Amino acid sequence: MPEIIKSYGAKEAKADLQPMEIKRRDIGNDDIKIDITFCGVCHSDIHQVNNDWKNSKYPVVPGHEIIGRVMEVGKNVKNYKEGDLVGVGCMVDSCQTCDSCKDDVEQFCENGATFTYNSEDKHLGGHTYGGYSTMVVVNKEFVLKVPENIDEKAAAPLLCAGITTWSPLRHWNVKKGDKVGVVGLGGLGHMGVKFANALGAHVVMITTSPSKADDAKSLGAHEVLISKNEKEMEKHAGSFDFILNTVPVSHDMDPYINLLKRDATMVLVGAIEPLEPFHGGGLIMGRKRIAGSIIGGIKETQEMLDFCGEHNIVSDIELIDMQNINRAYERVVNSDVKYRFVIDMASLKN
Amino acid sequence: MPEIIKSYGAKEAKADLQPMEIKRRDIGNDDIKIDITFCGVCHSDIHQVNNDWKNSKYPVVPGHEIIGRVMEVGKNVKNYKEGDLVGVGCMVDSCQTCDSCKDDVEQFCENGATFTYNSEDKHLGGHTYGGYSTMVVVNKEFVLKVPENIDEKAAAPLLCAGITTWSPLRHWNVKKGDKVGVVGLGGLGHMGVKFANALGAHVVMITTSPSKADDAKSLGAHEVLISKNEKEMEKHAGSFDFILNTVPVSHDMDPYINLLKRDATMVLVGAIEPLEPFHGGGLIMGRKRIAGSIIGGIKETQEMLDFCGEHNIVSDIELIDMQNINRAYERVVNSDVKYRFVIDMASLKN
Repeated sequence: MPEIIKSYGAKEAKADLQPMEIKRRDIGNDDIKIDITFCGVCHSDIHQVNNDWKNSKYPVVPGHEIIGRVMEVGKNVKNYKEGDLVGVGCMVDSCQTCDSCKDDVEQFCENGATFTYNSEDKHLGGHTYGGYSTMVVVNKEFVLKVPENIDEKAAAPLLCAGITTWSPLRHWNVKKGDKVGVVGLGGLGHMGVKFANALGAHVVMITTSPSKADDAKSLGAHEVLISKNEKEMEKHAGSFDFILNTVPVSHDMDPYINLLKRDATMVLVGAIEPLEPFHGGGLIMGRKRIAGSIIGGIKETQEMLDFCGEHNIVSDIELIDMQNINRAYERVVNSDVKYRFVIDMASLKN
Repeated sequence: MPEIIKSYGAKEAKADLQPMEIKRRDIGNDDIKIDITFCGVCHSDIHQVNNDWKNSKYPVVPGHEIIGRVMEVGKNVKNYKEGDLVGVGCMVDSCQTCDSCKDDVEQFCENGATFTYNSEDKHLGGHTYGGYSTMVVVNKEFVLKVPENIDEKAAAPLLCAGITTWSPLRHWNVKKGDKVGVVGLGGLGHMGVKFANALGAHVVMITTSPSKADDAKSLGAHEVLISKNEKEMEKHAGSFDFILNTVPVSHDMDPYINLLKRDATMVLVGAIEPLEPFHGGGLIMGRKRIAGSIIGGIKETQEMLDFCGEHNIVSDIELIDMQNINRAYERVVNSDVKYRFVIDMASLKN
């Protein structure tokens, strides 16, 4: 029998989030039932609430940076037990049989991954509901182990902002001594700086805002490059091994392409909309590359969490009560958060 | 003493080409003196004559697809002798000491390669003059051996159109069984089709013009995909291992990005201007890449020529006299050539 669960969601596009009740499926043999303790607030939660991508299904219960404790495991579950600290990210299922799933990149599942919210729900019908909620039931293959030694609440954003920046750094093989640029200092950028630093790179924060210099350095940037300063930008021309571009909106990429070394790559993880025209010549002279990347596979997400345990890496967060979510959304839209809101789910349970 | 040589060139921007005399340096110890027999006509010759790239120096003597016979060698030259069939492409010198030169990609020489025409002439001062001329003196490191078994005049375009398409196919490791798209059927595209076919790929010509289908197939394309046909384009979505994009002007890349497999690359070799906006989401969903490539290094050019000898590959050309160059330029601009004009330099000598 599906359980009725306390949640927060939006009933229609651009509506304020409000308390609501949703159904969760009963635990199956391959499932894990999780008591949600914390959930991060991702900008894409707001896009979905607003139907910015024209694919939202209402009510939307957002949340794909979920931290919790195992309440119960199905009889086929061997690797988890009651009380374990676990995480759930952007996906809760995939076909597990296609080439992408076999290659451990379930985010590109050729039959369509099931995302944590706003995807078709194969079990109950309707669509999936996310982590702004007290409990969730998830297939064991999509549950991550969270190291007990890191700050549980600050680990929540690792499940989306973390893996979104970790995956390209690893896929493009960023290593000790590489000069790595991180463009944009927000939820994604601040994780990019921490990871690139921990991987041994020389990290340059590239930002339009001189006011962010001190923060960037305290997060692990070795240098700060103000992208509006043409003279400084020219000094760094052709010197970067890799650039992680976290800018979430359309922008001019030419100044960043100019920073790349021959054969180097800039990876876009933020902007999904049409980007401003770039000069073909900028790529051609130096055989440079622009690529895209989105979240990461489950295996890679576990590797990231293990790395965070070893290096004691978490996000910088501001903890809020569920009841303050609408004000938090306004502040995210105004880039007024360092660097991620996390909801304390105790506030919904009481 | 510099020799005075018969040539054809433009005295000012957009002027017709006319007979003129230029100076060539005397042969040095490391030089090879070449009797030019044929020279291909590249679209960039026209751009330079017209000063489209705002860097032309007049008079411009174009031509960087040079075929000829060795007349004389300097005393340090061991690998060439009088009478050898040789080629000279887009470069006649580079620093030979920087990382790019050491990596055999002299086109990216960090101290600036010397291009065959319109580059600073280190020997005589002024600027370099190209192959629309009876003779040229070139440093031995920038002279290529042309296999004697291939059609000499049709080999000329290999030195630019050939290497421009060969280099990315090799650099991105196109291999037997790969599904390779070639966008655009002109001087570059027709070489891309021949090479991809000879490398064992399944070659798909992607074109806006159904009228080009038969020609594409006779050049080696296994399929022709009409890019204006949305239904056909959707059938091929996500199926290409590699796309060689030879379109020489700004265009919408989204339909081609949609054709790529996960982790696959589209390489731009034609358009150096600002391209139309593309959707970041198109790259992000599938971790796809856009890259650029320009000509190729000397070692790679020699490999291509050797491959052409083994596989009997040359360009499809129309042979013209030097005196008809201005009409030929009009026809290149109107895409009215299959697929490359080559000048018979005997017409200038008589």
